[in-house]
Amino acid sequence: MLAAAPRPVKETALGTVVPLETGRTAQALKSLQALVADDLALVNQVIVNRMASPVALIPQLAGHIVASGGKRLRPMLTLASAKLCGYAGERHIELAACVEFIHTATLLHDDVVDESELRRGADTANAVWGNQPSVLVGDFLFSRAFQVMVADGSLEVLRILSDASAVIAEGEVAQLLTSNDTTTSEDAYLDVVIAKTASLFAAACRIGAVIPGRPRAEEEALESYGRNLGIAFQLVDDVLDYSSREATLGKTVGDDFREGKITLPVILAYRRGSAPERTFWVRTLEEGQQADGDLAEAIAIMQRNRALEDTVARAHHYGAKARDALGIFPDSAPKQILTDFVDFCIERSH
Amino acid sequence: MLAAAPRPVKETALGTVVPLETGRTAQALKSLQALVADDLALVNQVIVNRMASPVALIPQLAGHIVASGGKRLRPMLTLASAKLCGYAGERHIELAACVEFIHTATLLHDDVVDESELRRGADTANAVWGNQPSVLVGDFLFSRAFQVMVADGSLEVLRILSDASAVIAEGEVAQLLTSNDTTTSEDAYLDVVIAKTASLFAAACRIGAVIPGRPRAEEEALESYGRNLGIAFQLVDDVLDYSSREATLGKTVGDDFREGKITLPVILAYRRGSAPERTFWVRTLEEGQQADGDLAEAIAIMQRNRALEDTVARAHHYGAKARDALGIFPDSAPKQILTDFVDFCIERSH
Repeated sequence: MLAAAPRPVKETALGTVVPLETGRTAQALKSLQALVADDLALVNQVIVNRMASPVALIPQLAGHIVASGGKRLRPMLTLASAKLCGYAGERHIELAACVEFIHTATLLHDDVVDESELRRGADTANAVWGNQPSVLVGDFLFSRAFQVMVADGSLEVLRILSDASAVIAEGEVAQLLTSNDTTTSEDAYLDVVIAKTASLFAAACRIGAVIPGRPRAEEEALESYGRNLGIAFQLVDDVLDYSSREATLGKTVGDDFREGKITLPVILAYRRGSAPERTFWVRTLEEGQQADGDLAEAIAIMQRNRALEDTVARAHHYGAKARDALGIFPDSAPKQILTDFVDFCIERSH
Repeated sequence: MLAAAPRPVKETALGTVVPLETGRTAQALKSLQALVADDLALVNQVIVNRMASPVALIPQLAGHIVASGGKRLRPMLTLASAKLCGYAGERHIELAACVEFIHTATLLHDDVVDESELRRGADTANAVWGNQPSVLVGDFLFSRAFQVMVADGSLEVLRILSDASAVIAEGEVAQLLTSNDTTTSEDAYLDVVIAKTASLFAAACRIGAVIPGRPRAEEEALESYGRNLGIAFQLVDDVLDYSSREATLGKTVGDDFREGKITLPVILAYRRGSAPERTFWVRTLEEGQQADGDLAEAIAIMQRNRALEDTVARAHHYGAKARDALGIFPDSAPKQILTDFVDFCIERSH
């Protein structure tokens, strides 16, 4: 199942195994952004308007979230999927905002759970305001998302996004129980990735077909596209945590390492590693005993075992499935852009 | 607006201003429990079944919640309201479970926010498992509630409960901002009570009329009943925190005081108090400087200013509104039981 067709990747001193962004993949993100630019501006307006509240902290926190520069990947996927399905109405705007609300709510709660202080290079909300508003504003965003969906009136959209939300929460609890366990299997980890990341990508894409009432096969094709894209996206994210320059990623390299997170590069390095290497992973990630130089050593062990490179290879496998899922749609500009976007997600260096 | 018709109440050495439970009010709870006993057993089954998950911590935590002996007031109100409306189907069972899921999710998140270690006399989930599962299982319960509502298929029920959830979260954030402020006004506090407590009581009752498709006037009557009952319930809760015996309430007397919560008894005592009394409230609640004997002193100040007694008087006012709201329904056993239940909520000593 995990047979992959790896592309050649570069290696540099600090283990950068992701190719530098090529002109073509940089263009893929720009094309997607151009495709949905007008709609996304409306989504941003909806986000701000729907977070209006006499309770000042709520719009303040909304402003912090909007300003923190997330790429809005998930709502962009809803918008682009709707375009792929030939949708010409307005409903996708508010529903794309719902997707972002749910994503942001899970980020806020995640930061409380992880005790993160930096996300996308900016202070996290809980570092700025404390845990309490993060929990409560997350709840508010989540409730608001459902209010907006109810106003839209599609029980099918409500079903898809409430299912995704339950799966995300279940996956988060599951991850809590397996965290810091170096013997976590690749499949168990993949289940967590599917739950925590891929399920919302899948839902975001699927509703693009639900809104215009397209046939079930198209719904399922977009769901499959989103799910596989989400898996690929997360695996590359895992790699970037051991290879990207902090400044370009806006994420602290070594965050996952310092938090003892068991991600696919660790799983591969552990399973392929020598006894001393396994001892290293147990000490640093299970027992949390980390010293200066351990991150560099972790990267060196990963390189010796081709763990980063092969995590990218796995990502290519899911990327290929995502591209093929779109095969049933007739050729169009949105189809080409969504197809190329898979490459961007895998080859992004930022 | 707050003119009240106080009933005579007893005072004892430690400031118990709530009359001991009389035969009639104890009977009111028993009658309500008898009215919905069969349905409530089914609701408890739904709660356990719907929290089944391969992620073991989720059913474990569900078991903890079920065993911790909450009275299930809110789902009982949904069940009894449906009976009042002559409903003879099955939908109220699952929807009553949704109400309890939402309530439990907010409790779990509340405990994280408050850092509570004791609720209903039992350890809180976060004291047993830590903050992380409380946040995440709360999210799971909330998502599950929406999944169950989607399966039921009523957009109106979805609207009512998503509105209530948003209002609750907004109220929690508002409370965060005003907490420990002794100059909080009675109306500002009432807004928080309406948001945090009364809105879910209102929603729980209202859907009892929505399920059988009763006229809007009956929906609104039940909403008004629930809202006013919820306000009365919370105000009595505030009083009990300064007067009940810990063993019978299952709640630590003085919890609110130790946490610096500004509740109506404090607001009345502060506004009516002398300069030294105000200094006492600022020191103990705003500045959090508490010493042995301060709780007894707080109760003594409240008694001098009739703050507990008059909080009960305010509760009677809302209780009267709740009873009158039911006036449009023809006489029936459920109507009598819901009417008597108002007295129980106000006069309960446990």
